[in-house]
Amino acid sequence: MPGNSFGVLFRITTFGESHGPSVGVIVDGCPPRIPMDENVIQEMLNRRRPGGSSASTRRKEADQAQILSGVFNGLTTGTPITILVNNKDADSSAYEPYAEIFRPGHGDITYQAKYSVRDWRGGGRASARETVGRVAAGAVARALLTRNGIGIQAYTIELGGIVAAGRDLHAVDQNPYGCPDMAAAELMEKRIQSVRKAGDTVGGIVEILAQGVPPGLGEPVFDKLDADLAKALMSIGAVKGVEIGEGFQAVRLLGSENNDPILPDGFASNRAGGILAGISNGDTILMRVAVKPIPSIAKEQQTVDVSNSPQTISIKGRHDIAAIPRINVVCESMVALVLADHLLRQEVIA
Amino acid sequence: MPGNSFGVLFRITTFGESHGPSVGVIVDGCPPRIPMDENVIQEMLNRRRPGGSSASTRRKEADQAQILSGVFNGLTTGTPITILVNNKDADSSAYEPYAEIFRPGHGDITYQAKYSVRDWRGGGRASARETVGRVAAGAVARALLTRNGIGIQAYTIELGGIVAAGRDLHAVDQNPYGCPDMAAAELMEKRIQSVRKAGDTVGGIVEILAQGVPPGLGEPVFDKLDADLAKALMSIGAVKGVEIGEGFQAVRLLGSENNDPILPDGFASNRAGGILAGISNGDTILMRVAVKPIPSIAKEQQTVDVSNSPQTISIKGRHDIAAIPRINVVCESMVALVLADHLLRQEVIA
Amino acid sequence: MPGNSFGVLFRITTFGESHGPSVGVIVDGCPPRIPMDENVIQEMLNRRRPGGSSASTRRKEADQAQILSGVFNGLTTGTPITILVNNKDADSSAYEPYAEIFRPGHGDITYQAKYSVRDWRGGGRASARETVGRVAAGAVARALLTRNGIGIQAYTIELGGIVAAGRDLHAVDQNPYGCPDMAAAELMEKRIQSVRKAGDTVGGIVEILAQGVPPGLGEPVFDKLDADLAKALMSIGAVKGVEIGEGFQAVRLLGSENNDPILPDGFASNRAGGILAGISNGDTILMRVAVKPIPSIAKEQQTVDVSNSPQTISIKGRHDIAAIPRINVVCESMVALVLADHLLRQEVIA
Amino acid sequence: MPGNSFGVLFRITTFGESHGPSVGVIVDGCPPRIPMDENVIQEMLNRRRPGGSSASTRRKEADQAQILSGVFNGLTTGTPITILVNNKDADSSAYEPYAEIFRPGHGDITYQAKYSVRDWRGGGRASARETVGRVAAGAVARALLTRNGIGIQAYTIELGGIVAAGRDLHAVDQNPYGCPDMAAAELMEKRIQSVRKAGDTVGGIVEILAQGVPPGLGEPVFDKLDADLAKALMSIGAVKGVEIGEGFQAVRLLGSENNDPILPDGFASNRAGGILAGISNGDTILMRVAVKPIPSIAKEQQTVDVSNSPQTISIKGRHDIAAIPRINVVCESMVALVLADHLLRQEVIA
Repeated sequence: MPGNSFGVLFRITTFGESHGPSVGVIVDGCPPRIPMDENVIQEMLNRRRPGGSSASTRRKEADQAQILSGVFNGLTTGTPITILVNNKDADSSAYEPYAEIFRPGHGDITYQAKYSVRDWRGGGRASARETVGRVAAGAVARALLTRNGIGIQAYTIELGGIVAAGRDLHAVDQNPYGCPDMAAAELMEKRIQSVRKAGDTVGGIVEILAQGVPPGLGEPVFDKLDADLAKALMSIGAVKGVEIGEGFQAVRLLGSENNDPILPDGFASNRAGGILAGISNGDTILMRVAVKPIPSIAKEQQTVDVSNSPQTISIKGRHDIAAIPRINVVCESMVALVLADHLLRQEVIA
Repeated sequence: MPGNSFGVLFRITTFGESHGPSVGVIVDGCPPRIPMDENVIQEMLNRRRPGGSSASTRRKEADQAQILSGVFNGLTTGTPITILVNNKDADSSAYEPYAEIFRPGHGDITYQAKYSVRDWRGGGRASARETVGRVAAGAVARALLTRNGIGIQAYTIELGGIVAAGRDLHAVDQNPYGCPDMAAAELMEKRIQSVRKAGDTVGGIVEILAQGVPPGLGEPVFDKLDADLAKALMSIGAVKGVEIGEGFQAVRLLGSENNDPILPDGFASNRAGGILAGISNGDTILMRVAVKPIPSIAKEQQTVDVSNSPQTISIKGRHDIAAIPRINVVCESMVALVLADHLLRQEVIA
Repeated sequence: MPGNSFGVLFRITTFGESHGPSVGVIVDGCPPRIPMDENVIQEMLNRRRPGGSSASTRRKEADQAQILSGVFNGLTTGTPITILVNNKDADSSAYEPYAEIFRPGHGDITYQAKYSVRDWRGGGRASARETVGRVAAGAVARALLTRNGIGIQAYTIELGGIVAAGRDLHAVDQNPYGCPDMAAAELMEKRIQSVRKAGDTVGGIVEILAQGVPPGLGEPVFDKLDADLAKALMSIGAVKGVEIGEGFQAVRLLGSENNDPILPDGFASNRAGGILAGISNGDTILMRVAVKPIPSIAKEQQTVDVSNSPQTISIKGRHDIAAIPRINVVCESMVALVLADHLLRQEVIA
Repeated sequence: MPGNSFGVLFRITTFGESHGPSVGVIVDGCPPRIPMDENVIQEMLNRRRPGGSSASTRRKEADQAQILSGVFNGLTTGTPITILVNNKDADSSAYEPYAEIFRPGHGDITYQAKYSVRDWRGGGRASARETVGRVAAGAVARALLTRNGIGIQAYTIELGGIVAAGRDLHAVDQNPYGCPDMAAAELMEKRIQSVRKAGDTVGGIVEILAQGVPPGLGEPVFDKLDADLAKALMSIGAVKGVEIGEGFQAVRLLGSENNDPILPDGFASNRAGGILAGISNGDTILMRVAVKPIPSIAKEQQTVDVSNSPQTISIKGRHDIAAIPRINVVCESMVALVLADHLLRQEVIA
């Protein structure tokens, strides 16, 4: 029944509800003697906070990280690292209308079915606010990965039907949508504005790169690197699809087109996305995730209440228009957690 | 480092290499008093065997299942169920040329990088023959699911560029490609024949349905039902992408289009694919996987040997032209394992 | 590498150092709809606090429990329950002399060997203060057990060489040593006073009963109920031995003496201690643990510093003279955690 | 519910019933490139076979080990190692009288309570025959430990009331009881003969040493080395108590007596038994286990049948008079499995 832990050797457990006192995470298994302080965490949490783009909610959360354990004199000690973020701007009264009614596209109805009780304030545990713990833990994982020369970057390649034409990674930080195509980013801004006016929401596609991953990571036959990445990414609330390398495009290639020729200085192409037989091959790991539109919409929808009587619902309040770009750092964090875990798992052999 | 187990409460561990003495599986955690014998296993193993379609290898394996433990007087006893299949038609000599050379698109190079040693005969542990254990365990899982009114069906919706126009599920067993569109199945046959002649291979898309799944299955926030399904399916050798419900199509919908309205007698649509916030909602669970082309091709390819010297390679022998349709029962089995596990996990609460 | 979690279905993760900001625990897997609030936790934490007996430290800790997640409107929700206790009266300066020297009988030298870094303040993670999280989680486990009619009681049957002659369980709460023999308790008080004057410490034996445990708990062949109880109890810092039922006395009995005859209304004796073949048999579960003397003594001892140079050490400060009786509720808590976990594990079958 | 796996990184899963087709084990997580063949396994299995002493059954089992996977060209490959032993001399008809009656001191009644079904032939899964898998896996673990300079030895220090006066480890292999005191071994032989005539059985104490264990093994605060050793040893069928170092004797020592002084060249004594705060300290690890008398006795006992009607029972057949000395290699194997696992877990840091 417990499902709030992730990872085998670099293992995290997240906790907290959207409108409870706090959200946070315990990281158990981080190696000792890694430089760590609250700034390392805060830098990543800040990327998750709303405010950068028109797509974001106006809920204001300082998201101030406190480290409660596992760090001493600026170094990790090998004991569990607990990171706490207190909830500040939680206005539960706005949610009272939804205490007895199920919002379509949300987990209200399934949490009720599963537990026969639920914290309905702000989506409770099913809120995207839960990802604070993931990002905080991801920051710790990244400190370990950076020491090993591994870097991770996520960027938006599609949003509300606008597709990035290129992959100018320098542009990613230059626009509010994390898009590697400045012209597309401008169109995304217009698209978001118009969708917001219509009381609707949009989805998109995030692409994630992991560079510098050594060959040999991944544990066949079930804890393959791609399998664990798929689980990690699919466990993010809004994600409905995951692909590695060519992904769904690979099905239209011939074997002779899809195989990456091997040359003495590396692979001649990277259709595999850096993973062969579930083990990293030393090339860039390439992933894409499908992000569904935010289900909280102002438009009227049909639904039922807890007595299964028909109702209509129109969700007001401070909601994102798209999970992108705030989700991008969450994707990076989940990839970081998988890679940190598998890096340690491979150290057992090496 | 161990990665050969899957599941928490319904837990399997597979073993065996393609050309070793045996392949098989232990199922630990199957509830007691479920009717079980070797025929239940054999029926599923037979669906995995080659021979049905032109896409399959001509390797002949009886794949005769033996139950070594955990069943007494025709019932499971609650103790570990071990299922063994001895390898018969393993012609290792055909693989001797590949002892020192890495086949492109295969795990040869990554296994070597990971373990610094590998059983090169027939791909060793990375062979698709490893899925025998998954299918055998899946047969046990299905016995549990059937008792609970849950059915699973996989079928081919795309192969070598040929797309099924409809979803006539009665047709699935009527053609060798497991395709729900008889006309498309005929085109698939022609496509396979022509690709075989060209010494090449193809990929495709398998869609999987799980019907009768009760609401409430799935353990937020990491062991969500869709996250575990994604891992299960992505852990199959040839799979490069997984999507749930609308999947990658959801990114082009508005929130108002993508949300499934809730009516007193159920959901008005099923774009979510039967899962909300990682928990089953009672509707049909709908998944699709991208299956890459088989990497063993007769066409000449560039590669290197274990000394990293450039080589060319042309892979002869008894290989499938497509992982489809033999992979379909493997997909069903992985889904069955996830559902059996989560069914038991939910029983703890209910 | 992570080792701070315990349990499979009722799973806890503890965190915190003696002189860090906080100690605490996450309980993941507690069933929903169990009445819970901070008083339930506080009642058990208060039993762990010093003050009751002459054997205890004079460190004053309010040990005020805060529930940060997983409880809503007085009920558990099925999501992770986080319990936080802030450290208040931590005087780290008293430990500065021990920053560079290893206290005999403590984990200073082994933590240094393992992690090459350690939080030396108050023993850091190896402090008995870590058991706050165990007791808080144990309180949640007990709420579940009480609902199922299971009760747990620990009491002191030996302390500093004084042995309880009887088992008057009504007396246990009537003396500061938790002893089921009032006369022995008085002798224990005298013994403690004299040992304190001598600058020394003592050990003892705690016996633990679990009553009302249904038959069928325990998962052969490794997660047997007695195996998990042994691990749970041996994981408590001061414990050096664990026995079940007759334990080490069973080795001097004949088979005909040690077997418990089975009568239609139950077992005629309980030498097995309520467990047969690793599974509860419905009788009272009976355990005993050997508690070593507290290693922090005022008497001078030989040791080395971090440079491996010989040193002498005399440990002043606010230390317990015996881990008993404060350890008794820790023993109860660990037993509660094992039983709650196995109760849920058996529900999967039943 | 699954309970047949042990270990985190060096992880085993055992299977098989006493009178089923086979018993065996999968080892998942053994590092690659360790020399391995069936002789390595067989040597340990032979030590477990009956025949050496008067205390043993006359059941004849060749216990011939077959390696089915994970070894190639005499080396482990990093993939799961499966070891199978077929049952040969299983005379189930001798057990037919016990199909409907519960043998006192055995798991018959608890397996029935737990699973509502059981394989009653020879005790089924609860038979000591299950330890074949433990010993086979232990042989693999020992190969890893030997490479790291770690040795393990178990010996009998008490049997049927006869206590070994000394610890002459050279004598252990010189007598059929694995006793480090030749004179005591002779008395043990006489004691066994007389108990056998009386239709009764005896217990004893096994002491186990692990030498060469590096400091730093053990994962606080739950997977401490002593906690995992306690679980490992208590999971053996006949074991009712476990102690480390001074164990239950430590409770009668003062702190000043029990602490091991630390000198520049090591500890001045080893009352701790080689473990401090759950982490190995580099000294010899010393354990003792209480082994109960074999419950199968010829003497008449009171019991009930599956309908809970009173019955008497007198167990004839080929039974051991004591679990010692056959259990000694099982104890060694369990200790080896714990140490191999923790050796790998510590490699992640080191």
